[in-house]
Amino acid sequence: MGSRQLWMPVIKVCSFTVAVFGLALLVPLTMAILDGSENGSTYAAVLLICESLALSGTMASWNFQITALTPRHMFLITSLSWLAMSGLGALPLLLTETTLSISDAVFESVSGLTTTGSTVLTGLDGMAADVLLWRSLLQWIGGLGVIAMAVAILPFLRVGGMRLFQTESSDWSDKALPRAKSMISRIIYLYIAMTGLCTLAFLYTGMDGFHAINHAMTTVSTGGFSTSDSSFAQFDRLSTHWVAVVFMLLGALPFSLYVQSLAHRRWLFWKDQQLRGFVMLVVAASLVLSVYQIALNHQPPLEALTLSTFNLVSVISTTGFASGDYSHWGPFAAALFFFATFLGGCSGSTSGGVKMFRFQLLAISMKESFQRALHPRAIVQRRYNGRKVDDAILLSSVAYLFVMLISLLVITLLLSLSGVDFDTALTGASTALMNVGPGLGELIGPAGNFASLSDASKWILSVGMLLGRLEFITLLVLLTPAFWRG
Amino acid sequence: MGSRQLWMPVIKVCSFTVAVFGLALLVPLTMAILDGSENGSTYAAVLLICESLALSGTMASWNFQITALTPRHMFLITSLSWLAMSGLGALPLLLTETTLSISDAVFESVSGLTTTGSTVLTGLDGMAADVLLWRSLLQWIGGLGVIAMAVAILPFLRVGGMRLFQTESSDWSDKALPRAKSMISRIIYLYIAMTGLCTLAFLYTGMDGFHAINHAMTTVSTGGFSTSDSSFAQFDRLSTHWVAVVFMLLGALPFSLYVQSLAHRRWLFWKDQQLRGFVMLVVAASLVLSVYQIALNHQPPLEALTLSTFNLVSVISTTGFASGDYSHWGPFAAALFFFATFLGGCSGSTSGGVKMFRFQLLAISMKESFQRALHPRAIVQRRYNGRKVDDAILLSSVAYLFVMLISLLVITLLLSLSGVDFDTALTGASTALMNVGPGLGELIGPAGNFASLSDASKWILSVGMLLGRLEFITLLVLLTPAFWRG
Repeated sequence: MGSRQLWMPVIKVCSFTVAVFGLALLVPLTMAILDGSENGSTYAAVLLICESLALSGTMASWNFQITALTPRHMFLITSLSWLAMSGLGALPLLLTETTLSISDAVFESVSGLTTTGSTVLTGLDGMAADVLLWRSLLQWIGGLGVIAMAVAILPFLRVGGMRLFQTESSDWSDKALPRAKSMISRIIYLYIAMTGLCTLAFLYTGMDGFHAINHAMTTVSTGGFSTSDSSFAQFDRLSTHWVAVVFMLLGALPFSLYVQSLAHRRWLFWKDQQLRGFVMLVVAASLVLSVYQIALNHQPPLEALTLSTFNLVSVISTTGFASGDYSHWGPFAAALFFFATFLGGCSGSTSGGVKMFRFQLLAISMKESFQRALHPRAIVQRRYNGRKVDDAILLSSVAYLFVMLISLLVITLLLSLSGVDFDTALTGASTALMNVGPGLGELIGPAGNFASLSDASKWILSVGMLLGRLEFITLLVLLTPAFWRG
Repeated sequence: MGSRQLWMPVIKVCSFTVAVFGLALLVPLTMAILDGSENGSTYAAVLLICESLALSGTMASWNFQITALTPRHMFLITSLSWLAMSGLGALPLLLTETTLSISDAVFESVSGLTTTGSTVLTGLDGMAADVLLWRSLLQWIGGLGVIAMAVAILPFLRVGGMRLFQTESSDWSDKALPRAKSMISRIIYLYIAMTGLCTLAFLYTGMDGFHAINHAMTTVSTGGFSTSDSSFAQFDRLSTHWVAVVFMLLGALPFSLYVQSLAHRRWLFWKDQQLRGFVMLVVAASLVLSVYQIALNHQPPLEALTLSTFNLVSVISTTGFASGDYSHWGPFAAALFFFATFLGGCSGSTSGGVKMFRFQLLAISMKESFQRALHPRAIVQRRYNGRKVDDAILLSSVAYLFVMLISLLVITLLLSLSGVDFDTALTGASTALMNVGPGLGELIGPAGNFASLSDASKWILSVGMLLGRLEFITLLVLLTPAFWRG
């Protein structure tokens, strides 16, 4: 493939992404104008930068007609879109918040777009409304981007077992394009509707309009940015917590199921093996932690149930809101939250983590292994969600897990070299790779903040968040010589 | 299969194991008599118990002729042999050391036989020689047991990818028996010779006879029990450390390679892909840690190289000797030692851990995944050590990894429930499952001791050590209903 054939489609699609991304700046711009904030000109400038870039790219690739996209195109488009948005998303933070260094602005932008939700900002409670809105918006856009990627791109790439969710054709040609477009536009409507519903529900529990809309955006996207340094602990009411629980869970379910359920006007949820596994796991973990909190830490039952469920759902859905410092709930809670960091929601949702379907595939493989141990020649029919699962899908899920573990090792070692203690390094690496938000310990725990880390640590974690969000291989494949040999 | 057909071969083989195991008590018995220690009668009594049990079992199964063993037989034989030896091995500790509770004695015995090397005993330096000798002997026997299991049993079971090391026939019938017997008897000679060499080498570096023979037994078996509370820090000389490094490494290499090299009178080592990977990893890790120690902790170069290599080889080979408290070497060292806990040596050695061949298989699978990402239809020839590797072997290695991670989760959670902090729970679970020895932190770190843990923790860890030693599935399969349905 010539370099023109490779790059033109990439430039064309990325320009479109940047153009749409740029339009999002209209929201904080409007807010700044309404508020009379001096940040308005910054948003206008960044908007101009985005649209100029997009225009140049579009013009450069104007005469090029996209016919079929190869895996190389899609890897480049996906990775470069996220990188471009991360860089451009940092500009408003860099230019409005004069205290933010480049490292901080990039960290915050990546944390936002990847819907991780770790923050380096303090004093959120007194911060300009337009900045808070931009942070929430980054997460909201990031969440949508992840669903689009999971629905329209990853199933066509042999990455991390996502081929399991491929619907029909095995090529991403012009045939697949209209179908993907229609799916994505339905998902966008749904996503907007869900955010609206979440806002209304938050309003109903007594939140004011600004808080409601910000938290709705960061809840539905399982992002976890808040408008206060104390995150959800700023809200006294249990009902507010339960609304968040419901919408964090909704954000962690496969969005294509919503679309299909609406299209067929049938309730398809419980038929989905991934969803069933996820819901049962969340319920079981929440109950165990609630009982532990009631029996051993003597929390009042309703409070225990609410806080246990809220914080666990927050971590498992990879949202990362915190209400109270669960790192002081004792070693069992710490261990539970550590392992919960890796779970994640369902594929095709806004959520990060390893994700339920991979654990279910591994469990199937484990069960097979026990069967084979007793009956070496047994022929096992391997099915998931009613579909046959071949070895290739299983092995590609495994490759995901192995690359994840190696990334965890490398990032933990690098962080520990930069001076933080072992717990901070290990849980910081985990929470970044899994796009959760808080780690454990005083520094980066649920009551902590990533501000005190060194610049080096912040860059390492930014890379980690992007790696996790792009399911590792999508980004790492660009670093292999084979990729550039074509 | 009738219950007679199932149990008679199991009783027959386990009786033989117990009879041989019992004979080992002659060693501390002799020592006690020579020393005039009052422990002599205890060893005699336990010897009597072992041989009576063995005799009863042998008589009960006298008329039964073993023709072919099924996987069910082999799982039962393997698991019950280890359980029986663990229980019987605890008796001398329980009856001679009056301060030891049942939990402590069982923990120490399991830690010995599984060649883990965690200890609940303090005041080793002043302890009766026969007790120290029995502890060393437990590890020495355990090491031999592991090699025998890896060479003669696991390759015939579809467990953890060990089928990779199956030589010819796929059934463990009477044809395979003589071959296995001859292999094992050669390995026993080699193991004895290696222990003798190690003793001589230790003597040469200035150790006295008793220390030399004890440490030789726990070095070659990659066990890690010492005759002093300060482990290897009791020896000043660097040469002593390097002798240990050499023999820990030799213990962590595949013993069948030694046998083959001797039989063919050819140096086959560097041809072995597993050995190459293991040696390169150990060298790389030791160099990185040495540089870190010299550059950041300002240790003198020779001391840094010695202590870094010694402690890392000790952990990677799953021996677990310590020389100095590396948990005070800073967060990078802590993280490095934590991850090193999982590596392990080569299969077919005395060493525990995940083991090099599984990481290499996973790396192959990962590389394939990158290739498939770019060329979805590429046909990949998958070879390891010159042999074709089918999907089943790969998936069975993966199942090992997944069961290991679930065990890590469960044991960490259980330990944290019993009251220890998160680090102790996580690293304690890791070190037990991987049969290494020390964890991290003040309590169970290289300078610590498992004595202060609760009885519940000790039982949990004992189960963990056995699980790890039996490659998880060998033991866990006994708990599945399918096993007992036959």
